[in-house]
Amino acid sequence: MEVRHPKVQNKCAGPGRPANPGGFLDGHADKRDTCSAAHSVDFPVSVVLPAGGTGERTGLQTPKQFCSVLGRPLISYTIQAFERVSWIQRIVVVVAKESMDLMVDIIRRFQHEKVQVVSGGSTRHRSICNGVMALGEDGEGMAPDRPGVVIIHDAVRPFVEEEFLHKIATAAREHGAAGAIRPLVSTVIATTSEGFLDHSLERAKYRASEMPQGFSYDVIRQAYERCTETDFEFGTECLHLALQYCGTNAKLIEGPPTLWKVTYRKDLAAVESVIKESLSESACMITGGRASAAALAEAFQKAAGALHMGLDPIPDVTAENSRYLLKEANFIQVSINDQCLSEVEALIQALEEANPALLHPLVVIWMLVITEDEASDGSTAAPASALMDMASTAKLHQILLYGIQFHQSEDSERWDRSVTRAAQITRVLIRERSPALVGQLLQA
Amino acid sequence: MEVRHPKVQNKCAGPGRPANPGGFLDGHADKRDTCSAAHSVDFPVSVVLPAGGTGERTGLQTPKQFCSVLGRPLISYTIQAFERVSWIQRIVVVVAKESMDLMVDIIRRFQHEKVQVVSGGSTRHRSICNGVMALGEDGEGMAPDRPGVVIIHDAVRPFVEEEFLHKIATAAREHGAAGAIRPLVSTVIATTSEGFLDHSLERAKYRASEMPQGFSYDVIRQAYERCTETDFEFGTECLHLALQYCGTNAKLIEGPPTLWKVTYRKDLAAVESVIKESLSESACMITGGRASAAALAEAFQKAAGALHMGLDPIPDVTAENSRYLLKEANFIQVSINDQCLSEVEALIQALEEANPALLHPLVVIWMLVITEDEASDGSTAAPASALMDMASTAKLHQILLYGIQFHQSEDSERWDRSVTRAAQITRVLIRERSPALVGQLLQA
Repeated sequence: MEVRHPKVQNKCAGPGRPANPGGFLDGHADKRDTCSAAHSVDFPVSVVLPAGGTGERTGLQTPKQFCSVLGRPLISYTIQAFERVSWIQRIVVVVAKESMDLMVDIIRRFQHEKVQVVSGGSTRHRSICNGVMALGEDGEGMAPDRPGVVIIHDAVRPFVEEEFLHKIATAAREHGAAGAIRPLVSTVIATTSEGFLDHSLERAKYRASEMPQGFSYDVIRQAYERCTETDFEFGTECLHLALQYCGTNAKLIEGPPTLWKVTYRKDLAAVESVIKESLSESACMITGGRASAAALAEAFQKAAGALHMGLDPIPDVTAENSRYLLKEANFIQVSINDQCLSEVEALIQALEEANPALLHPLVVIWMLVITEDEASDGSTAAPASALMDMASTAKLHQILLYGIQFHQSEDSERWDRSVTRAAQITRVLIRERSPALVGQLLQA
Repeated sequence: MEVRHPKVQNKCAGPGRPANPGGFLDGHADKRDTCSAAHSVDFPVSVVLPAGGTGERTGLQTPKQFCSVLGRPLISYTIQAFERVSWIQRIVVVVAKESMDLMVDIIRRFQHEKVQVVSGGSTRHRSICNGVMALGEDGEGMAPDRPGVVIIHDAVRPFVEEEFLHKIATAAREHGAAGAIRPLVSTVIATTSEGFLDHSLERAKYRASEMPQGFSYDVIRQAYERCTETDFEFGTECLHLALQYCGTNAKLIEGPPTLWKVTYRKDLAAVESVIKESLSESACMITGGRASAAALAEAFQKAAGALHMGLDPIPDVTAENSRYLLKEANFIQVSINDQCLSEVEALIQALEEANPALLHPLVVIWMLVITEDEASDGSTAAPASALMDMASTAKLHQILLYGIQFHQSEDSERWDRSVTRAAQITRVLIRERSPALVGQLLQA
């Protein structure tokens, strides 16, 4: 059984899709600009992602590649890391038979467009082999459209970056095979049959072999055509097959630490933390063009900066500023004494329209500033319940709405304290993206 | 320079100290009961903790052993993991000269009692050697009090457990040396001088050498007395020195995955997640003995169970129930229509008195249930501001106070929804332990 999806070549983000909400480790400025001309290749590159693991070591029921991180399965992040690379053409995901339906559903829900799902074999090598063979076929009766280079990666290493993929692809093209290596973290030792130390290896001479690896298509296909049943059963290393059966010595390239592999349950927490950190680097503060809101934005910008969060104050999200709807994950709508939620409602609607396929939850914070005159009547019950209702609806569209209320004070010390507290609360709401706290009107 | 602290032998938790707030991975029932008779040894065991690393790989300014996790440096968790083992006598922490003051301050703040701080050398082996030698001396002019066995561990592996330490100590006593091993996570490969694959090692024949390691004192001391400058400069493996200079083949023991080492920044997030998970397994709900509160507790218990959180309802924290003050990290004080915070105040005071040395922040949630008759007058402004004030003060003592308010409803569907939401909010507040959100009165 194979499930095919339209193949899209050299595709950048379409108009209805966030430009690059998955570039988690690309740095800061322009991190969402994916269609970089810096890395391109003049030969076809496709990807095989073996994802048949059972995840025994995580101690979880769900195989780790399907575990949810911020509401989305881990494998979807890895797919996205490849999908946003313009010069990658097809991604063949190889899953166990019993996970086929789940995988097809993930592709549909998160609108992955370069992916083909293939049923796996009983071992890792059989699964990868199935993926490689699928790349040589064409489901629509046309001539096989073999890629020049195949990149093989793990579904549970979601943070692979374009720059490194480019290095692997070009080295594979030049040398027939290429693989990522990392320094050894621990000393490697040989044991006697009785479980005692025999000798330890000199760390400097050895490396850990990691993923991704790249192969010219003919090399990896030949290697699988020639290898033995024993290789299929017990082998783990594709580079070894290329050496043994094609005489190809792979070029080894030191990869960044971000290539790490999710192995245990605690690694899922680390993935979530990296993604949350990346999503909470900045926010966009919408002032409505009002002078008092702009003054607040200035003070807030300073307080947020102290918490290592960037803040862009803008009057609204129309015209040129509508680009924020696609590039920002966090919005703060300022209201001065205006307890009506119409601006927030309009913002949420604009977000829903701009992002039909949300790959991660967005945060909207309604920041209600009450000047001293209005503070005494204590009439916060109405906006609190309207906020809760609106938040419940927005949550269905992956938009997390919270409120922060504070009192403008003539006393500058008290004012500073409120601004600082509002910034701290904002930071936590944006960082944690907690669905359980939506609709709350917090006091700063 | 050496800083000595009183040496306490076979010490269990004293009366003024939480029994075992650090047994993060011991399982569930009785996890805080440390003075287990199951593991004891009849020879003196001490520990050397090299903590001189600079933490380059984390990309952080602070060396990783001093990075804060829930307000407490990582190394304090590791020290605590040893301190709570009754049969461990002394813990020598070896730090860089420039970190001596910081380390002494950590020992004072977190009331570590078995620790001695020693200045490190320029390499890992020199530092460990300093620690080993310090164990053979006695600062007070008495005869050297050499331990039978020395356990060497990393400051950045905080989750080591008593059971495994016992295995290492007894094997070291029997064989002269013992070390933790783990299966290799990646294939290990040898590279040519030009950076190509030479060959890959057969994974099954090799193991990763991890920490802790144990040595009979004479073996490790002799090894350091005999080894060369080159060993001191470039060596990494104590087991290797014991083999080379004392002919001692270490016994290798497969350790649990929890022995992992904090290496990168993302690993700190994983540590925090493991600790938070462990601190949020259960909560204690104080009903005041009122029937309506007990009914709520029953419904809440079910909702919390669905969120994998245990809940113990108790009428108060006096008499026999005062043990909860020492063994529980999370408290929910139920108030029915009583907007006065006196019960919460009393609870916080009892916690402060019972826990002079808090090793982690405690959570107190004030759960205010308003019956329908009272709901309409909307007079929540007073308790909200009193709650905020009380929370600000409690935070100074590491007690994080939050409020959840909800309305008792005759409509059972609405009531169920409120209880579910209150449980979700409770779970998040307890899990995240966010200082920025203290004092908030949240709506369920």
